[in-house]
Amino acid sequence: MAKDKKVEQITDMEVDFAQWFTDVCRKAQLIDYSAIKGVFIYRPYGYAIWENMMHILDKEFKKNGVENVYMPMLIPESLLQKEKDHVEGFAPECAWVTHGGNDKLEERYAIRPTSETLFCEHFANVLQSHRDLPMKYNQWCSVLRWEKTSRPFLRHREFLWQEGHTIHATAQEAQEFTETMLHVYGDFCENVLAMPVTRGQKTDKEKFNGAEATYTIECMMHDTKALQAGTSHYFGDGFAKAFNIEFTDKNNQKTAPFETSWGVSTRLIGGIIMTHGDNNGLVLPPLVAPIQVVVLPVAQHKPGVLDAAAELRDRLTASGLRCKMDDSDNSMGWKCAEYEMKGVPLRVECGPRDLEKGECVLVRRTDREKVVCKLEELETAVAEQLKIVQQQMFDKAKKNLDDHIYEAHSLEEAKQLQQDNGGYIKTMWCGDEACELKMKEVAGMSSRCIPFAQEHLDDVCPVCGKPAKKMVYWGVAY
Amino acid sequence: MAKDKKVEQITDMEVDFAQWFTDVCRKAQLIDYSAIKGVFIYRPYGYAIWENMMHILDKEFKKNGVENVYMPMLIPESLLQKEKDHVEGFAPECAWVTHGGNDKLEERYAIRPTSETLFCEHFANVLQSHRDLPMKYNQWCSVLRWEKTSRPFLRHREFLWQEGHTIHATAQEAQEFTETMLHVYGDFCENVLAMPVTRGQKTDKEKFNGAEATYTIECMMHDTKALQAGTSHYFGDGFAKAFNIEFTDKNNQKTAPFETSWGVSTRLIGGIIMTHGDNNGLVLPPLVAPIQVVVLPVAQHKPGVLDAAAELRDRLTASGLRCKMDDSDNSMGWKCAEYEMKGVPLRVECGPRDLEKGECVLVRRTDREKVVCKLEELETAVAEQLKIVQQQMFDKAKKNLDDHIYEAHSLEEAKQLQQDNGGYIKTMWCGDEACELKMKEVAGMSSRCIPFAQEHLDDVCPVCGKPAKKMVYWGVAY
Repeated sequence: MAKDKKVEQITDMEVDFAQWFTDVCRKAQLIDYSAIKGVFIYRPYGYAIWENMMHILDKEFKKNGVENVYMPMLIPESLLQKEKDHVEGFAPECAWVTHGGNDKLEERYAIRPTSETLFCEHFANVLQSHRDLPMKYNQWCSVLRWEKTSRPFLRHREFLWQEGHTIHATAQEAQEFTETMLHVYGDFCENVLAMPVTRGQKTDKEKFNGAEATYTIECMMHDTKALQAGTSHYFGDGFAKAFNIEFTDKNNQKTAPFETSWGVSTRLIGGIIMTHGDNNGLVLPPLVAPIQVVVLPVAQHKPGVLDAAAELRDRLTASGLRCKMDDSDNSMGWKCAEYEMKGVPLRVECGPRDLEKGECVLVRRTDREKVVCKLEELETAVAEQLKIVQQQMFDKAKKNLDDHIYEAHSLEEAKQLQQDNGGYIKTMWCGDEACELKMKEVAGMSSRCIPFAQEHLDDVCPVCGKPAKKMVYWGVAY
Repeated sequence: MAKDKKVEQITDMEVDFAQWFTDVCRKAQLIDYSAIKGVFIYRPYGYAIWENMMHILDKEFKKNGVENVYMPMLIPESLLQKEKDHVEGFAPECAWVTHGGNDKLEERYAIRPTSETLFCEHFANVLQSHRDLPMKYNQWCSVLRWEKTSRPFLRHREFLWQEGHTIHATAQEAQEFTETMLHVYGDFCENVLAMPVTRGQKTDKEKFNGAEATYTIECMMHDTKALQAGTSHYFGDGFAKAFNIEFTDKNNQKTAPFETSWGVSTRLIGGIIMTHGDNNGLVLPPLVAPIQVVVLPVAQHKPGVLDAAAELRDRLTASGLRCKMDDSDNSMGWKCAEYEMKGVPLRVECGPRDLEKGECVLVRRTDREKVVCKLEELETAVAEQLKIVQQQMFDKAKKNLDDHIYEAHSLEEAKQLQQDNGGYIKTMWCGDEACELKMKEVAGMSSRCIPFAQEHLDDVCPVCGKPAKKMVYWGVAY
């Protein structure tokens, strides 16, 4: 007997986007709260998305010659203090270990907020000759930042990420690698997560503590706010000099290498939710969805239905898909709502009448379009529908982005456009931090990036009227 | 021109086994020291072994219905204190966080030494009905234990591991699952790591803090000392009751579930080194070796050699193997010594004369046996040689184990046998902790386990003369 389990409602996104987001995180069982404020538990369904992302990204890193390592989670305070800008940026939000067992430590240790200092110390220990270069390391781990406010996936005191750290013999090679990794992130977002990105450079004000240049991919969420989805930093030889990292070059001279670091985090899951989700819940990109296809037997008590459904599941699993059949005694209505909530990209329905005709029905999560499929063509048809889902997701997000970029030529115009429409406001900029601060103060927007794809909108800065140097995208960010 | 780089020597294992071990860890670039005593850096070659192990184990876990999650690294002191035996065991070796940013915390937090308490709290939050059971969770993470002494891989203050935590509706199901996971570990050690294991139960003295029963796999190292390589714990409903974990059973009654946990760590890498290594360095089991085959071109300046070697590498890579070609300008002697040190299971040599004959030479790391191979049979021949290497490694370790198990019928005999031969001393045991302590005091041995495969050696306990209950393996352990 079908049990009529009630479908839990989530807040409509148009009513309260923030509440909708929290509802989705909780009801799709992505995350749970822990005993400590701002620290979250990654539940199986949430963690599985991250696992799939790790798997794909890790392969891309390795294609680029990157090797994985694991550095300690603790940083002695004296080590953190070696690079001035870096410690100023991070020390105020470190969690500090003061006791080991029953003993007070001679020096306190920070739980890593990021590991530049640890990698630098290690590079100084192991680097000898130009033959050892480049060294391209990465680690998958969690980091701690003791921030005041928190939000699932977007701002955790402890979050999962990867941090790559590389050293190179020349500045040019390091600069190129910084951009290479930014494009790895950008391509991953666009091709895997179906999230269009804007690639560009951060202003000096927004760059990473201690970096010479920070590059970023910015994504626009459904509510037209911006999400910084990944960054890649070029350090020059500043850290190397602060940490005495040296190698013997081809002319037998001691010299400092040039350094990069780059990272993405589980914040990307927040990005997926807010880019693709709708009032029925999650919509997951097929390539990272924990369940890519769910098979739902219709009238499953009828003879032969369950066996046929199981066979479909087995065939799809054998074709390399993450596939699940739900033959629980919940009602069909509940099941449909449940897997829509969980964002499963494609549903396969098969009932006695479909099976009689040698057919089943494929239903896309994106638009609920039903496609009748001959059983013998199942694998091809499912693969094709998943491609369509992926494309639909990208197109919808791309349209949202394209529809919400506005050009402004004065501070007032920028403010008004942001108030009326949200999104990115693009303007020229003279390069002065004073004008950047003014934009924040007056129009409530931070500079999101100086896009690689520059346009000449005007000759002067809309804030101060001095000659313009660059075009900037401004926005309100998560 | 071949550069005559000097091959660094390692201490002979017969001279100083501990020094040999440290030399291997350092010179094979598995590990590096960090700024904090007892905390180590996992370098790319060491971490890659762990990655391969994780990959294989994770699949096995998932076959057993286990899902991955990620729990916070911090445990509030009050949470850690909820289960009495558990906190007594772990609190003395916790690292404590007392400050977040500039603020003193109201309650101090331990960095997880293990996460039973966190999983219990989460289970209490999410478990509702018997339909939710079993919940089988696992996480891959690092844990901290602030111990006084340390040694690469064997005892780190911070080490990488996995910890599985499950809850079940019945005691029987939980008990069975505890043993299932022990056998997953045992089979992994034997079939993947080529390390024969002794499977059994720990005595009450040696069991995990808070567990009702602890099962273990014990491995014998080359020096005949024992290494506890993995454990699986059955908790009954003790933790569940301490943490108020409840579910509604089929009769609509609130009841506590039964719990298990199980873990292996990077200590297994220490086990691999000490089981299989020799005076030339590491010997790595093919299934987890970061480089399974190294292709070394002989007289590589001769026309055609490098291209031919690259083709062999490409073919082996295409066949699914982790394969590397070394065409650096180091001498052939240096390269052979280097990849022996790194424990690469198989070396492929190809020079002009081999190639003329349409052949190459395969050299096994285990016994340096050379096998001539027709180029067209490369993939099959390499696969076959890797199987032989795996078998040779297991057989050698199994012989070492079998040759060093001695039967004793008195305390004095046990002591003498251990002094003369090391290894495991097997005796009967009455079950009293007093006799176990006496064995430690007099013969310097701890109980390694009560093997599943029991033998009746005698009617009485060799220590007290009272009726014997079980046969125990005793040994000196890492």
